[in-house]
Amino acid sequence: PVNVVECEASVAPKGEKRSSKTAEADKKRKLDGLTKDSPMRLRMEAFNKRLQAEITAELERLDGQGKFAVDQWNRAEGGNGISMVMQDGKVFEKAGVGVSVVYGMLPPAAVAQMRAQHPNIAVTKESMPFFATGISCVIHPHNPNAPTVHFNYRYFELGSSEGGEPVSWWFGGGCDLTPTILYEEDAVHFHQVIKDACDKHDPRYYRDFKKWCDEYFFIPHRGERRGVGGIFFDDLDDKSPEELFAYVQSCGNAFLKQYIPIMEKRKDMPFTQDDKMWQQVRRGRYVEFNLVYDRGTKFGLLTPGARIESILMTMPLTARWEYMHEPDLKAHARLMEVLRVPKDWVPL
Amino acid sequence: PVNVVECEASVAPKGEKRSSKTAEADKKRKLDGLTKDSPMRLRMEAFNKRLQAEITAELERLDGQGKFAVDQWNRAEGGNGISMVMQDGKVFEKAGVGVSVVYGMLPPAAVAQMRAQHPNIAVTKESMPFFATGISCVIHPHNPNAPTVHFNYRYFELGSSEGGEPVSWWFGGGCDLTPTILYEEDAVHFHQVIKDACDKHDPRYYRDFKKWCDEYFFIPHRGERRGVGGIFFDDLDDKSPEELFAYVQSCGNAFLKQYIPIMEKRKDMPFTQDDKMWQQVRRGRYVEFNLVYDRGTKFGLLTPGARIESILMTMPLTARWEYMHEPDLKAHARLMEVLRVPKDWVPL
Repeated sequence: PVNVVECEASVAPKGEKRSSKTAEADKKRKLDGLTKDSPMRLRMEAFNKRLQAEITAELERLDGQGKFAVDQWNRAEGGNGISMVMQDGKVFEKAGVGVSVVYGMLPPAAVAQMRAQHPNIAVTKESMPFFATGISCVIHPHNPNAPTVHFNYRYFELGSSEGGEPVSWWFGGGCDLTPTILYEEDAVHFHQVIKDACDKHDPRYYRDFKKWCDEYFFIPHRGERRGVGGIFFDDLDDKSPEELFAYVQSCGNAFLKQYIPIMEKRKDMPFTQDDKMWQQVRRGRYVEFNLVYDRGTKFGLLTPGARIESILMTMPLTARWEYMHEPDLKAHARLMEVLRVPKDWVPL
Repeated sequence: PVNVVECEASVAPKGEKRSSKTAEADKKRKLDGLTKDSPMRLRMEAFNKRLQAEITAELERLDGQGKFAVDQWNRAEGGNGISMVMQDGKVFEKAGVGVSVVYGMLPPAAVAQMRAQHPNIAVTKESMPFFATGISCVIHPHNPNAPTVHFNYRYFELGSSEGGEPVSWWFGGGCDLTPTILYEEDAVHFHQVIKDACDKHDPRYYRDFKKWCDEYFFIPHRGERRGVGGIFFDDLDDKSPEELFAYVQSCGNAFLKQYIPIMEKRKDMPFTQDDKMWQQVRRGRYVEFNLVYDRGTKFGLLTPGARIESILMTMPLTARWEYMHEPDLKAHARLMEVLRVPKDWVPL
């Protein structure tokens, strides 16, 4: 299934511009104040926005100089978003954290696709109302010793009506680390923190979602992965919404613990011109993955009226394509090895 | 139809590694020496290689410092290629000129696709032997006043047997100019030279192929074209092979006349840091077009065993993605206008 949230795209058929009844009812609910009994979609939206504020504040603190520019937008069909981007900071070359909330109508072909994973969706020839909210983050530091990182957590509802329960719902998301210069201890730390978050909720989650991540971020034409992985999951509805919301919160809340200690160690390390060039070449690979394979990006680019700047917020500020570039194997043999054959950084 | 040549990809099913009888017979023909009666595929291959030598020599002369690195390769299934790349020259940031020659077997599904444009291809459930040769060139100069340029000319045969004629054949190709800073006189010159070449062969060619080019190089998610166009054609078999080979030679031979005078004027012009940044942002668009929309690139990336370095030879050395970048409209309003609404640079 396509990642409706990450691309912040409108999938509403043309012409349908009226805010849905659910969206209107939800506006009122938010004014009245959220409680533990509020619909899951509103609680996930609130969580995403709180997490975005917390992470951007912490990244600004760490950078010490760069500030996030804030873009807020509203969809006529219902929904809104906040894109926050820091560019050319002291530590961060580019860091984007986006939250989106989308109410819309899903065409029957897309509904049919979702039925494959969610068999309780009835066969229909009609469009169905859907809701999606997600938080998505990509951070590219200046220093080649410091890794790029990405995460995304999202919640999807199909057939949510004004008052009642949705026909179907699920959570998705994940996080992954993309070093230019490999420090194995950083990969171990990144994985250990997210494993701990997973283990609190289900002993199988880390093992299964780590594998899924290694599969998802594969770049076939290079025969290598984008980075050293993390976790990836989609269509998750194997527990109650309450339990899975708790799981996704654990994952989202783990992010700063995963990334900030690594950055503290790496952001001021000395580096050479060769290190910087190698970083630029690896950024080229990042661009290749995002433009050619990433489902969210592809879906977004093909969606008329999608907010392109939010979709491509994930791109590095700079990238480089050298013909027949050969990695310096003295320096990067181990990185290339773990990109080709994924490693279990922590015991499964 | 996919552009088999530009991506220099093998479409032979796995396992089939023996050189075809046609390839073997052609090797002998080349040793005996080519004449006007030699098969078209050998004459087009020879033309491509001569043109490659001529263009790379002239680009080295113009650069005055950079040299082309030469990579030659052979395909076990038959065929060969020469990739020539100059990187970090004085004038050129990256210039690639590649020639490829491919003998292979085309799977029935691909044959069926080609039947749409070439109805004389019989319905079959078998793979068919094919031959393809092409020359492809992309040049990215350092100076933002100097435009990027691309051209590609190619010849395709289906069902070529050891001695006899092919079942079907066609020519394809085109050229297009991608300025960072618009000089309208350069666009006029580029178009006028290729129009003159077209007009010698058919009064409709320039008009039709100019329009096709404007359509092909459109980037839907940006609502703009990659550059100021040129010509684009494919599946061309509306005249005899002899006449169309003459046409394609005229186009290929026009290239240096199209591009070198522009470069002589622009290569040493002064520029600002803003000009350079703008160039890097436009290069980002070039990458977006190539990775997301270009048929040759997409086909190549999806083909197992394709030579990735040759496919991505077209990428700029450097590119940049700024969030919410707004062009300086004082400087670039006119460029943006002609990228959004293509202009007739010379009377049609």
